[in-house]
Amino acid sequence: MRLGVYPGTFDPLTNGHLDLIRRSLKVVDDLIVAISRSSPKNPIFSVEERVQMIEDSIGGRLPVKVEVFDGLLVDFAAAKGASVIIRGLRALSDFEYEFQMALMNKQLNPDIEIIFMVPDVSFTFLSSTIVREVVQLGGDVSDLVPAPVWRKLKERYARD
Amino acid sequence: MRLGVYPGTFDPLTNGHLDLIRRSLKVVDDLIVAISRSSPKNPIFSVEERVQMIEDSIGGRLPVKVEVFDGLLVDFAAAKGASVIIRGLRALSDFEYEFQMALMNKQLNPDIEIIFMVPDVSFTFLSSTIVREVVQLGGDVSDLVPAPVWRKLKERYARD
Amino acid sequence: MRLGVYPGTFDPLTNGHLDLIRRSLKVVDDLIVAISRSSPKNPIFSVEERVQMIEDSIGGRLPVKVEVFDGLLVDFAAAKGASVIIRGLRALSDFEYEFQMALMNKQLNPDIEIIFMVPDVSFTFLSSTIVREVVQLGGDVSDLVPAPVWRKLKERYARD
Amino acid sequence: MRLGVYPGTFDPLTNGHLDLIRRSLKVVDDLIVAISRSSPKNPIFSVEERVQMIEDSIGGRLPVKVEVFDGLLVDFAAAKGASVIIRGLRALSDFEYEFQMALMNKQLNPDIEIIFMVPDVSFTFLSSTIVREVVQLGGDVSDLVPAPVWRKLKERYARD
Amino acid sequence: MRLGVYPGTFDPLTNGHLDLIRRSLKVVDDLIVAISRSSPKNPIFSVEERVQMIEDSIGGRLPVKVEVFDGLLVDFAAAKGASVIIRGLRALSDFEYEFQMALMNKQLNPDIEIIFMVPDVSFTFLSSTIVREVVQLGGDVSDLVPAPVWRKLKERYARD
Amino acid sequence: MRLGVYPGTFDPLTNGHLDLIRRSLKVVDDLIVAISRSSPKNPIFSVEERVQMIEDSIGGRLPVKVEVFDGLLVDFAAAKGASVIIRGLRALSDFEYEFQMALMNKQLNPDIEIIFMVPDVSFTFLSSTIVREVVQLGGDVSDLVPAPVWRKLKERYARD
Repeated sequence: MRLGVYPGTFDPLTNGHLDLIRRSLKVVDDLIVAISRSSPKNPIFSVEERVQMIEDSIGGRLPVKVEVFDGLLVDFAAAKGASVIIRGLRALSDFEYEFQMALMNKQLNPDIEIIFMVPDVSFTFLSSTIVREVVQLGGDVSDLVPAPVWRKLKERYARD
Repeated sequence: MRLGVYPGTFDPLTNGHLDLIRRSLKVVDDLIVAISRSSPKNPIFSVEERVQMIEDSIGGRLPVKVEVFDGLLVDFAAAKGASVIIRGLRALSDFEYEFQMALMNKQLNPDIEIIFMVPDVSFTFLSSTIVREVVQLGGDVSDLVPAPVWRKLKERYARD
Repeated sequence: MRLGVYPGTFDPLTNGHLDLIRRSLKVVDDLIVAISRSSPKNPIFSVEERVQMIEDSIGGRLPVKVEVFDGLLVDFAAAKGASVIIRGLRALSDFEYEFQMALMNKQLNPDIEIIFMVPDVSFTFLSSTIVREVVQLGGDVSDLVPAPVWRKLKERYARD
Repeated sequence: MRLGVYPGTFDPLTNGHLDLIRRSLKVVDDLIVAISRSSPKNPIFSVEERVQMIEDSIGGRLPVKVEVFDGLLVDFAAAKGASVIIRGLRALSDFEYEFQMALMNKQLNPDIEIIFMVPDVSFTFLSSTIVREVVQLGGDVSDLVPAPVWRKLKERYARD
Repeated sequence: MRLGVYPGTFDPLTNGHLDLIRRSLKVVDDLIVAISRSSPKNPIFSVEERVQMIEDSIGGRLPVKVEVFDGLLVDFAAAKGASVIIRGLRALSDFEYEFQMALMNKQLNPDIEIIFMVPDVSFTFLSSTIVREVVQLGGDVSDLVPAPVWRKLKERYARD
Repeated sequence: MRLGVYPGTFDPLTNGHLDLIRRSLKVVDDLIVAISRSSPKNPIFSVEERVQMIEDSIGGRLPVKVEVFDGLLVDFAAAKGASVIIRGLRALSDFEYEFQMALMNKQLNPDIEIIFMVPDVSFTFLSSTIVREVVQLGGDVSDLVPAPVWRKLKERYARD
């Protein structure tokens, strides 16, 4: 049984994240979607809301759990017995930071492998940051996020 | 049982490749190192020599086979029953080409996942191209390639 | 008649922006320089000051208007009847973000084309951010911004 | 009336190129698709075949002509009375080369503007090079090129 | 006698910085490590603490002084009689910003040359930012920073 | 006395190279411009012609020699007693390759430092490759190369 960890802030979960969660189950048997409590500084959704939205979006059918962690990602992964950390790569700017963090994490714990996966091409441009920017300016992102996330975003940014 | 394919030209195998082969066994149970017959144009070693050098470098202890393929990588992977293609990412220039090929391969066969792994930091600068360039200019690359490869390189580029 | 929109924060306008405004009139017949009210967080000049500086720098001779917009850029462009959004590309880091935004904007409104133009080579290194950094440290940027902007910058950062 | 030139080797035309041709007609009134006689070194289709395939793919409905040119692109554009050169930007590696060429072309003829356009996201990974590689390995690219190109590719690479 | 300036924020000094300081003495005879008082916004160590940690890490054996400067880097370098500014290049993202700043600095003072040096490969992934992130999450960075820095970091982030 | 080596193919020397030669004399006392005999495959000028053109372009006034080398650059630099290798960085694509080679060269000889310098902004787009491409298509590059190079290029590509 291979356990993977897919870390992120998921503020909010996008269809790109969901695509990656599904794909990663071809590489690992079980997956923990892991939300770091320490970032970002001013999220639009609380950690608890983000856990709930991810669980609602995944449904109960997949061997996927959502958990929150403090401290270093590699320590969390090791404590859970995971052998693989999964990261999505959409663009060049991702790559540089991810590469640095991968090298750092190997330094911190050489037993855990970091693997990168590429989302479907239609999600190349999609990030939580862009979703937040568009929705705050009144744009419709219903095609870009799962239905449970879109409901929460509409509540949050409803214009009366 | 998860089977992975690690494709490349391996002209010649470097210590960076060997590092990746070992790491990939944390992600898959069995691995095929797959040499494409169609590239590059003017290799310094024949496909058969490259197979031999990889086998000699791995030894018989790992669940790894070396095979040669014609045609499309995704067709080869599917025929073998592999679910994962593994690629190394050292640098930005790798990334762009790999990203394009990953998107193309998904278009050709969406059932096979491509994953990227980062080699040990000490191999960041290492590629078959640079090994060839240095050795052709008389440099010593014994720290950069496995011993069986270094023996063959010395034979090939011996200066009388 | 083709109408273009050239959006930005222009905090402040640089000679690079002015160069792009002039060049863009080879591609469109009329141009709206569009300042987003929502960014950046802590500008050094108010939106009204920025409009005034751009108008003073352009003079009345060009078929260019300066306007302020709220909400999504593509909605503003559509409301004005523009068919083209014009963006400057100086460097790689521009490119990645611009590329993502261009793909997102096409998703939001496929009828509006985004085109990228390259400034004169002497402006490659020039950005509002660098102008602000240099002027705040006491540097002379009179060669880098139009005269009306330089006057305002001197007022703002005068050292008594 | 604004005339644009869209230069390339088009060996062969892809659906990405066709998408860009259609989009460019929002920016210019008439378009010349311009094939350089001097590149690439060993094309798979002759210049005449490439002209024919582009004309067949466009049909007669668009204000688009296909022409072949020798010498410098900016000289060709100037001789035709074009004010705009249009280039597609898919990826970072495109960007660097295009950027250099754009600066060089401005040096050679400052009166002609170069503009860059981004293809639909589904064409991000698509290039003539990748089409050639895949088709030569027996892959099906019927979704990636216009029907007249696919017919010619099948003829050329038919396996008996 | 050639004097070089090696500017930075050094919040905190890493082993990568120390490596660069040592290497730079092959290129210049004397070196000033120059800490800008104006950045970053919220350092974890005061400018005075950073000066002390650098001095403690270098020891008294090298022809290196540590100084703090206000205003523009090129003005500081000129006032000190330096002919060379030295910057480290680890990664692509460094490169773009450094490149822009180098061009800007040449514009401000063409007499001072900026040179870039590459740290040892084992420091490729290392930056003050990553050190701060890891240590704040409880990670051990004793291999990544000089001993005097590690002592201060432990004091600062001691968990009681 | 610090001796530097500035290696390249210089096929042909451009004004960007000449600018870098002059700047490098702020960092080293003497300079060897070093032409590798092993590259490129099919130069437009012989190694001897390139030496002559560089000498004619520099004149006798600078402490600069032009030499040809075989074998590894670091071996050549060590044999000459040089402590520094100087490379120009114009663009991102330069950077990646240069970075890899710098790391490799350090592996081969850790005693020789590689430093990178940025040419004047007006030379950002300039490379020997682009000069060759433009001149072969009949373009005028008299502003881009030293006069002795322009004379030789006109001889070589004269159209009768």
